[in-house]
Amino acid sequence: MEVRTPDPDPEPEGSASVPSAVGPGWLSDIELEQVRHRMPVLYVEAVPVRVDGLGQVTEVGLLLRANALGEITRTIVSGRVMYGETLRDALFRHLEKDLGPMAFPQLPASPVPFMVAEYFPIPGVSPYSDDRQHAVSLAYVVPVTGTCEPRQDALELTWMSPAEASAPQVAAELEGGRGALVRAALASVGVLP
Amino acid sequence: MEVRTPDPDPEPEGSASVPSAVGPGWLSDIELEQVRHRMPVLYVEAVPVRVDGLGQVTEVGLLLRANALGEITRTIVSGRVMYGETLRDALFRHLEKDLGPMAFPQLPASPVPFMVAEYFPIPGVSPYSDDRQHAVSLAYVVPVTGTCEPRQDALELTWMSPAEASAPQVAAELEGGRGALVRAALASVGVLP
Amino acid sequence: MEVRTPDPDPEPEGSASVPSAVGPGWLSDIELEQVRHRMPVLYVEAVPVRVDGLGQVTEVGLLLRANALGEITRTIVSGRVMYGETLRDALFRHLEKDLGPMAFPQLPASPVPFMVAEYFPIPGVSPYSDDRQHAVSLAYVVPVTGTCEPRQDALELTWMSPAEASAPQVAAELEGGRGALVRAALASVGVLP
Amino acid sequence: MEVRTPDPDPEPEGSASVPSAVGPGWLSDIELEQVRHRMPVLYVEAVPVRVDGLGQVTEVGLLLRANALGEITRTIVSGRVMYGETLRDALFRHLEKDLGPMAFPQLPASPVPFMVAEYFPIPGVSPYSDDRQHAVSLAYVVPVTGTCEPRQDALELTWMSPAEASAPQVAAELEGGRGALVRAALASVGVLP
Repeated sequence: MEVRTPDPDPEPEGSASVPSAVGPGWLSDIELEQVRHRMPVLYVEAVPVRVDGLGQVTEVGLLLRANALGEITRTIVSGRVMYGETLRDALFRHLEKDLGPMAFPQLPASPVPFMVAEYFPIPGVSPYSDDRQHAVSLAYVVPVTGTCEPRQDALELTWMSPAEASAPQVAAELEGGRGALVRAALASVGVLP
Repeated sequence: MEVRTPDPDPEPEGSASVPSAVGPGWLSDIELEQVRHRMPVLYVEAVPVRVDGLGQVTEVGLLLRANALGEITRTIVSGRVMYGETLRDALFRHLEKDLGPMAFPQLPASPVPFMVAEYFPIPGVSPYSDDRQHAVSLAYVVPVTGTCEPRQDALELTWMSPAEASAPQVAAELEGGRGALVRAALASVGVLP
Repeated sequence: MEVRTPDPDPEPEGSASVPSAVGPGWLSDIELEQVRHRMPVLYVEAVPVRVDGLGQVTEVGLLLRANALGEITRTIVSGRVMYGETLRDALFRHLEKDLGPMAFPQLPASPVPFMVAEYFPIPGVSPYSDDRQHAVSLAYVVPVTGTCEPRQDALELTWMSPAEASAPQVAAELEGGRGALVRAALASVGVLP
Repeated sequence: MEVRTPDPDPEPEGSASVPSAVGPGWLSDIELEQVRHRMPVLYVEAVPVRVDGLGQVTEVGLLLRANALGEITRTIVSGRVMYGETLRDALFRHLEKDLGPMAFPQLPASPVPFMVAEYFPIPGVSPYSDDRQHAVSLAYVVPVTGTCEPRQDALELTWMSPAEASAPQVAAELEGGRGALVRAALASVGVLP
């Protein structure tokens, strides 16, 4: 049984859609646990935004979630890239998983992320940390044009102005140092105050 | 009277919508001519593209046009930034001017261009040249989702595959060295062969 | 006589090296004043940084300056692009002007800036303002490896940690909204807290 | 025993410096082989360049190498990111490994790559392929200022002009589709013809 943790990659590895007893390309929970301590794990992350008619970012969407300890934390769209999966497929899969099927995200034309975030198990090596693993994440700003319906374990998606999203109190609520990542996202689109 | 030249910034400066006898912010034809030999002129340019559901570029749109000498040349969306105008406003204005009101361009969230192109009156200083002026252009890749109807002086908008658009014969038909700019656009979105 | 103002482009236009009575390509003070109200003026800006052996930014250099009102303000390297001048030449010229001949700046291999800053005469149109003109600036992060000796009208170049340089009180001292530009610079190199 | 293959990540996994019987963070040859068919493997790649005094790229360095079949192939600096290793450390390690200790590479201030290259075991999924694994590579343009001495299994480092390096015959000699990556590198610094 899988215990839901404050997991930036929370798809159940043993769920029906991604069976545990699988061929090459899929890892069982135990295998994933082992590999996580042997190799950096590749992630994609997305900062969902609303844009106006001229493409200017007007709002930023942050996910609100209760973690295993009952604490409320914020995060962004985030998840692992599977074996054989393109970055675009992974990005789309995690956007749909976290924002629902009606979010209509506009994936970027360029595969170059606005930032590469390095998460280390020990805090302090970089601005980002993840006690489960060494993860390297390609992070994108993704405009969404539809209606977002976060899945069950996320309490809600909160839309904020760039000023609100970059405030220190919001940064403190973001998991793993992602406050810096959200600010970098806002800076990359010219709206960080 | 204005003679239509193979002008990458062809809005009639003396037209009804942009009157010649104007206050600060607008230049008469004569003034523009003078300034063009005194200061670099700021341009925005756009390479229109079609993308698939995952944001991947599938086609590139190039404008076909007959110049004053009756030669057929190709170009991209291109035009001057006016005094007091934001880059986004200028980009939208030139996209609408060149692709029509139903093109529905998706302007980028980031104001950072994929390339800065420097056009000098004398060829050879940079890959780009413009015998009328020293222009510096911020160039963007812009997905368009609607129907493009080029305005009268453009014969048509031709959609090409990335491989076709980057071929030497197409590059040779592009004005002012813009073959290199189209290839840089394709490279920036990961589809230059 | 030229009155020194808190000018982000402070080279004396009428000085010996750039004579006022000049041919095409150079503007007299009066002409510049006129053009500044008719066209956006192209600038380059540089945020000087120190990097460690692996390229990571460790310090940011901000210029301290007394303006015409006797107020102490901070700024970054900034100046106009001249007619016929390449962006690289302009960037190098202004770096040498503001940091002295022994700064040994490492100009970026890519001409793409980390941000395009739009300065409007009226505050509020964008994060940046300049009451003299509509300026559009291509902004770069530039590592300097030598010794910086700011020229006379700058009091000093202050090296700060990324955390110090992004603090609100420093942002408030930066001219024309450049606090946001310095933060965007830090974000672009992954060191904005 | 390790057979030298045309390997873009050729450090001997079982060599003295990286022992085969190791703790967390290092994979034995067998383990690496297994993981390579279960997860995308994170790589860093570097296109070494020479720049002039203004930062403009003048030459590109390509490695020449005989593969296991005795064929001469070209490649760029390339290698795996280890568990617990930062991207900068990995980039520096592979630059030193491939170019020698006197190359004095200038690592970029920004961790954002010019391109993300996705290598799949089956050609055609993306422009890049690697029959050993699914690898995702963050690719950087890196100016080198010193003397390059390729290690033993590389025959030489060849410096070429941008025009030479982007020619079809050179692209055909580059392993795994890296011709497109070299062209994208040249485009990102504004020197792709």
